[in-house]
Amino acid sequence: MKGLFITLEGPDGSGKSTVARLLADYLREKGYDVLTTREPGGTKISEDIRNIILDTKNTNMSYVTEALLYAASRAQHVYQKIKPAKEEGKIIICERFVLSSLVYQGIGRGLGIENVKAINDFAIQGVEPDVTLFFDIPPEVGLKRKNRRDRGDRLEREKLEFHKQVYEGYLSLIKLYEGKIILIDATKTKEDIFQQSIRIIDDLLEKSREE
Amino acid sequence: MKGLFITLEGPDGSGKSTVARLLADYLREKGYDVLTTREPGGTKISEDIRNIILDTKNTNMSYVTEALLYAASRAQHVYQKIKPAKEEGKIIICERFVLSSLVYQGIGRGLGIENVKAINDFAIQGVEPDVTLFFDIPPEVGLKRKNRRDRGDRLEREKLEFHKQVYEGYLSLIKLYEGKIILIDATKTKEDIFQQSIRIIDDLLEKSREE
Repeated sequence: MKGLFITLEGPDGSGKSTVARLLADYLREKGYDVLTTREPGGTKISEDIRNIILDTKNTNMSYVTEALLYAASRAQHVYQKIKPAKEEGKIIICERFVLSSLVYQGIGRGLGIENVKAINDFAIQGVEPDVTLFFDIPPEVGLKRKNRRDRGDRLEREKLEFHKQVYEGYLSLIKLYEGKIILIDATKTKEDIFQQSIRIIDDLLEKSREE
Repeated sequence: MKGLFITLEGPDGSGKSTVARLLADYLREKGYDVLTTREPGGTKISEDIRNIILDTKNTNMSYVTEALLYAASRAQHVYQKIKPAKEEGKIIICERFVLSSLVYQGIGRGLGIENVKAINDFAIQGVEPDVTLFFDIPPEVGLKRKNRRDRGDRLEREKLEFHKQVYEGYLSLIKLYEGKIILIDATKTKEDIFQQSIRIIDDLLEKSREE
């Protein structure tokens, strides 16, 4: 097997972190070598960049700067962690990837999907996900879940209106990338979301063995 | 007057910093409002980014990450400092700009001029220099000058071979951007380099008044 690169996408509070953990445990028990990681971050350099982006003191950061920093963080993450893991045949479970930037920067910040896609194509140098699970949950429900847990950083404090726009953005991109992104109903219980996810991943691993 | 954006380019040790200072003094004495700045850096966020790039511990930084960080730093610099200064009618003297990235990342790092130009076009959002002075000095001479002063950071410790490639890169880009970049003979004394520079800037200000 030549590795499997899975990305988890969806609004805040849609259960990505929990399912990433459950999915990793499940696959490790089945004997797979699994790497879990997240964006922005995943390496020391990426975390350094993440700290600049999320620093609440940096309120005057331009949207263009923000988009380039996310792309830079991703470039290092791909180069140092995802690409080597894939070459070693591992299963990589990554929370958020290019789709998040297309939605949050391209649509949410109004920078344009094409512009943000161009800088990200440069960043990832051809390392595309094999499958993307989209955790589908209306923004009101997702935010309510999230806010129970913490006060949130700069991005999470943005208005609900922004999150609604982001959700609409996700839905329109899913239409655009038809077939490459699989929808998970994330309004259900954690266990149910997890079960939906393993059905898809198991199918994929099955097909991968048959090849 | 609607502001003048001057960039100084050239290899390390070509005298950019000294001439930037002398030029600013000269123009201020003539009554102009002058902003001197440099890249990478120029704003708090840009300095934060610069620190990640130049951190000697970050030896495993990919060239793609590096190029995106330079672009991000530049985006913030343009947004927060250069664009507002230009709108206020100031003369901006900036050490290094897009040309440096085309040379150091596009040619020196082998990422390709077109790729690096694309991410920088996104970064600067149309804020192009009105004139670029290229301080022309063979890399051997420039490096010798520079090394007398300090031990150098990560980039400066790179081999002479890299600097030679960069110099050739500058020369080829100057041909490409014919007319937009003015050559200054930087093998001369500081005073002579300064005199060459003010002749060009004075001409430009003269023309700007006539318009």
